[in-house]
Amino acid sequence: MQKGKASIQFDEPPYIISAASVAGTKEGEGPLGSLFDVTEQDDMMGQKNWEAAESSLQKKAAELAAKKAGLTTGSIRYLFAGDLLGQLIATSFGLMDLEIPLFGLYGACSTMGEAMSLGAMVAEAGYADRCLSLASSHFATAEKQFRFPLAYGNQRPYSATWTATGCGAVVIASQKAARNEQTKKPLAKITGITTGKIVDFGLKDSMNMGAAMAPAAFHTIWQNFQDFGWDERQFDRIITGDLGTVGQTILLDLLRKEGYDITGIHMDCGIELYDGEKQDTHAGGSGCGCSALTLCAMILPKIQEGIWRRVLFVPTGALLSTVSYNEGNSVPGIAHGVIIEHVESV
Amino acid sequence: MQKGKASIQFDEPPYIISAASVAGTKEGEGPLGSLFDVTEQDDMMGQKNWEAAESSLQKKAAELAAKKAGLTTGSIRYLFAGDLLGQLIATSFGLMDLEIPLFGLYGACSTMGEAMSLGAMVAEAGYADRCLSLASSHFATAEKQFRFPLAYGNQRPYSATWTATGCGAVVIASQKAARNEQTKKPLAKITGITTGKIVDFGLKDSMNMGAAMAPAAFHTIWQNFQDFGWDERQFDRIITGDLGTVGQTILLDLLRKEGYDITGIHMDCGIELYDGEKQDTHAGGSGCGCSALTLCAMILPKIQEGIWRRVLFVPTGALLSTVSYNEGNSVPGIAHGVIIEHVESV
Repeated sequence: MQKGKASIQFDEPPYIISAASVAGTKEGEGPLGSLFDVTEQDDMMGQKNWEAAESSLQKKAAELAAKKAGLTTGSIRYLFAGDLLGQLIATSFGLMDLEIPLFGLYGACSTMGEAMSLGAMVAEAGYADRCLSLASSHFATAEKQFRFPLAYGNQRPYSATWTATGCGAVVIASQKAARNEQTKKPLAKITGITTGKIVDFGLKDSMNMGAAMAPAAFHTIWQNFQDFGWDERQFDRIITGDLGTVGQTILLDLLRKEGYDITGIHMDCGIELYDGEKQDTHAGGSGCGCSALTLCAMILPKIQEGIWRRVLFVPTGALLSTVSYNEGNSVPGIAHGVIIEHVESV
Repeated sequence: MQKGKASIQFDEPPYIISAASVAGTKEGEGPLGSLFDVTEQDDMMGQKNWEAAESSLQKKAAELAAKKAGLTTGSIRYLFAGDLLGQLIATSFGLMDLEIPLFGLYGACSTMGEAMSLGAMVAEAGYADRCLSLASSHFATAEKQFRFPLAYGNQRPYSATWTATGCGAVVIASQKAARNEQTKKPLAKITGITTGKIVDFGLKDSMNMGAAMAPAAFHTIWQNFQDFGWDERQFDRIITGDLGTVGQTILLDLLRKEGYDITGIHMDCGIELYDGEKQDTHAGGSGCGCSALTLCAMILPKIQEGIWRRVLFVPTGALLSTVSYNEGNSVPGIAHGVIIEHVESV
């Protein structure tokens, strides 16, 4: 069941039985706009502050994912969830009302990969029939947390990415639970994971997080290839979280140096989520919500339809805080890989 | 294998094969001082800032726990780790050099319970032969993060707790791995878990976190009793994380109202860690390090010796940030229960 240094191959791959995406206004105007379950009309979501707005994204996505699976939230055994804010307040205040046992996670923008990895392990092992894995971010809460007050109107370098406003949530079920209850075909199955370690190339520019995270993405993809004896030919797509255009170039270069060319099959959620030129998002999108939204709205439907049969989904996170940055530290990265495959029949 | 709403009973309980405690100066002067593996001579730990000091606690505890188990850190498959700081920087910068796949966790001061719960599940299920579960806090990083600059010398109300400086780390191994390699008797086994949900009684006083967390501790203990059909007679000790004297009274009252009297067997790590009167710690200790240190230095040895045969270890967390607090939000709590038992023979 263990496979190599950092990977697991599941004997009985758990199913993703539903997915929900709740997006902000700018995301709704982007190339994936028509694919989201919900596009908010107002980035305050009717709340009194940005943090409460992000919390409402989580709550809405969690409830919608359960509903789309034909479940009440009460039949979800565990939540695996996180966000970018200090002490995970978007998660705590967003998911409180669900009254479901919670494992709070922090993997920066890689959190969706971490949440799905743990959800898949716990479901396959029989500890839970169904888990909800979700992650959110909000442009305004992230700017307030990490950068400048919005009203300051600071200029952003072209290497900077735009924190996505949105939440993606998936219900992961054991095969047994899915077979017993599911009438619809699952969206996909999780056949394996490759868990990331912290990778630090010493970059210190918090306005160039794509470059900071690319080495972590490289390492997780490379590790996946080593652990399974694979190369790029095993995947229809390798999809990173939020490297953006700058990070993508570095990732492709790093892999090429090791003899792997993923150029034809690489995709980055940060590049897909926005129309960079029209929407002024510079290097692309970022934030936990970026990969979570893209997964739920676009990647999973394509896998369900069989357009892609096997995808390596690799959300990427930059492990910095304003404190670590101001103390002169580098920006290390981490990336968690999830192997998602098409389900032929149940 | 699932047992009730929020609990699991392990068929093949994983073992805790080693534990390491690295404590700060004040903790070393407290009642548990002689029990720590390492007591630092200086709370800066030779580092250039408080955050780097906390990171060094994590690194030292992780390496020592591996060493005490007769392992290199390279033979640890996963890290489950967290701290109190925004974006978990103590963890990221502390564990980076270990180059081990990491699941970053945030459960406030309940993090040690969360880390052990996930480590135990992953080890029992065979996804890992050995995991390291650890959590840290540091008085000075926490004051900087949540309260006032140290130099301000603010007065603290008597309901306030003192954030512990220290890190506790345990190596959790599957029975199979432990049998194959371990020559020494394990410290203990983890026979089950009860995972907490967020509980909010609406308290808003961040200087009275014991009161804010007591309802969560109550709920997890009560849920444990319901899920297993148990009551207080099943445990030699029920040990909460950091309720302190104020929170303890509330917990005992809440349980009494439901017909359970745990007065004779309740212990709180926050009350054990310091001599409240002499050390001016007011209601007790707190922080992820408080329960992690007490577990590793005092609780596990007593279980190993058979003085206690079955303990419910319930680290408690207060889910607030300065942002949530300043926006007028309440301080919700969460508590993760871990059932730890004496190992007769392997």
